[in-house]
Amino acid sequence: MIVFFTDFGNAGPYVGQMKAVLYRDCPGVPIVDLLADAPAHNPRAAAYLLAALVPEFPPGSVFLGVVDPGVGDPARRPAAVAVDGQWFVGPDNGLFNVVAARGETVQWWDIDWRPPRLSASFHGRDLFAPVAARIARGETPPGTLCPAADRILPGWPQDLAEIVYIDGFGNAMTGLRAAKLAATARVRLHETDIMHARTFAAAPVGQLFWYENANGLVEIAVNQGSAAQVLAAAIGDTLHIV
Amino acid sequence: MIVFFTDFGNAGPYVGQMKAVLYRDCPGVPIVDLLADAPAHNPRAAAYLLAALVPEFPPGSVFLGVVDPGVGDPARRPAAVAVDGQWFVGPDNGLFNVVAARGETVQWWDIDWRPPRLSASFHGRDLFAPVAARIARGETPPGTLCPAADRILPGWPQDLAEIVYIDGFGNAMTGLRAAKLAATARVRLHETDIMHARTFAAAPVGQLFWYENANGLVEIAVNQGSAAQVLAAAIGDTLHIV
Amino acid sequence: MIVFFTDFGNAGPYVGQMKAVLYRDCPGVPIVDLLADAPAHNPRAAAYLLAALVPEFPPGSVFLGVVDPGVGDPARRPAAVAVDGQWFVGPDNGLFNVVAARGETVQWWDIDWRPPRLSASFHGRDLFAPVAARIARGETPPGTLCPAADRILPGWPQDLAEIVYIDGFGNAMTGLRAAKLAATARVRLHETDIMHARTFAAAPVGQLFWYENANGLVEIAVNQGSAAQVLAAAIGDTLHIV
Repeated sequence: MIVFFTDFGNAGPYVGQMKAVLYRDCPGVPIVDLLADAPAHNPRAAAYLLAALVPEFPPGSVFLGVVDPGVGDPARRPAAVAVDGQWFVGPDNGLFNVVAARGETVQWWDIDWRPPRLSASFHGRDLFAPVAARIARGETPPGTLCPAADRILPGWPQDLAEIVYIDGFGNAMTGLRAAKLAATARVRLHETDIMHARTFAAAPVGQLFWYENANGLVEIAVNQGSAAQVLAAAIGDTLHIV
Repeated sequence: MIVFFTDFGNAGPYVGQMKAVLYRDCPGVPIVDLLADAPAHNPRAAAYLLAALVPEFPPGSVFLGVVDPGVGDPARRPAAVAVDGQWFVGPDNGLFNVVAARGETVQWWDIDWRPPRLSASFHGRDLFAPVAARIARGETPPGTLCPAADRILPGWPQDLAEIVYIDGFGNAMTGLRAAKLAATARVRLHETDIMHARTFAAAPVGQLFWYENANGLVEIAVNQGSAAQVLAAAIGDTLHIV
Repeated sequence: MIVFFTDFGNAGPYVGQMKAVLYRDCPGVPIVDLLADAPAHNPRAAAYLLAALVPEFPPGSVFLGVVDPGVGDPARRPAAVAVDGQWFVGPDNGLFNVVAARGETVQWWDIDWRPPRLSASFHGRDLFAPVAARIARGETPPGTLCPAADRILPGWPQDLAEIVYIDGFGNAMTGLRAAKLAATARVRLHETDIMHARTFAAAPVGQLFWYENANGLVEIAVNQGSAAQVLAAAIGDTLHIV
């Protein structure tokens, strides 16, 4: 299974163009469009979101992760990393930092291979998708990879007390795992203290609350309303536990 | 074939997360993303829209229908219903009411099975998708289901004279089947009387008209324009036949 | 492989409804959602965008191209065209004009077949998808087609110095192939002169530049910003080479 996690947006041809490469290079392998609206140009927020989503995918899953503001910059290297039987292919800019830091068995790889035609702006299609296809076909390690030293960027916390994603309902996900908080904790965002509720149905319609979302993250929500709008919340806003 | 009909939105990871469950539990079964922007938190409007879309799907299709404002409320039970050879799995909140009321052979089922891990907010992934997968694999009735009494909510009309969906062009679909109206009828919305046209091409550019859409519903449109904008129409607005 | 190129939008049931037809009529054939937000009601702009995207698809690909403001108008005929081993099925309104004009081996076909039930507004589902499915199944030419004379609309330039698409980042694609321009050329849009850069990373954050995008088109962009917003650019705006 190949899993797409990008900031390409739901509109536009980019996701479809990557898919065409995979149908050519690893036909029959299922593709899951997990997320096309990862935090744009923001590998740090995206890294915490990705780490929350991967545990439900089976071993052998290959994540094609592309949040790549540095595309075309020779200093931004392509990378692959195997973490506890799952694979991650994309730019070496921290996007896989949190997944790797939380993993038990972690192996980083350099991608030395280059395609015959490499565009300046779309390495997702030209470089990362073909490499992901080889891994998905069972070439492990594919001839395109060389073992590399650990590339985890230092100085990133295990949990991030910031908004990392806002969904279409206006629910604001954070980079904090709920298991680290007591249910009696309140979180504070923009001077507003927010109490815990176990579910949407447990909160009155229109009231702010935080809860453990379906991926284990602290998420701020309003029952049948938009927390992002009520709080004027944006990706990167900092939370406090009170 | 499994058919997704949800209000999850086109952005976000939710549709992809449900798909991952299906690739695991019923690999090879085609999945159709029919609608991810069903009327949010509005099972009543969604029910009339769903009923208009199902006839073109073959017998054996399994609809995963999730418009679920009551998720996490113990009073909201999960349900499945078989209607004329098609299956519908989701919350028991009226979403399948219209399909069932229009069906000839209808059997309701309780879902007593619970997964090892049931999140408070994402029964689409944790409960409904696994049950839909079993039905799609041919377990009919699956061990997860018990026959139940008829659960059609009383008091819903056969046709609903309200806007139930607004598409990306600004066309406003209603819950009225066009076959119930004469072509000479006018519909009135917000004090505006709207004449019939057979097709977009039959109406002058920029003019309001109603027509029988491709799913048999009365739809209000503007040739190369947005009826929703012209009329300031919203889901739930009431129509009158004049 | 069947490739979707439409202006149906990413929301709404229309893409899913076409997909259901293909799962029924040519099961197992991969479907690529290439673009659902082609320039709305604008086959001319869409034609230049489509022509830039097709070269990366393999021979045998069948493009279902639906940008169809004239649907329901008897003067708008359905058509198919085979260009260098790829197929294009959709309205005969110029959408395939640029692909055909750039092709070496081109054969146009009439679609005389009509389905038992043809809605007035959704020929994508009722007419074009079934014909595309037959071609994808290997009926070449399918019984639904009759050879036709060349239908290329006269008077369209080989390259179009206009904005033809704006992506989710605000990058503005033009109908100009970059290979026709010197890298020292500047393009002018709305009184603003724009210099060339090879990549996003080569331009300072926030600065306007043009570059050769991953499909060979001149594209106007801002590193980590929105060119469309900075320039108030819209589809159809004219460029000048200076």
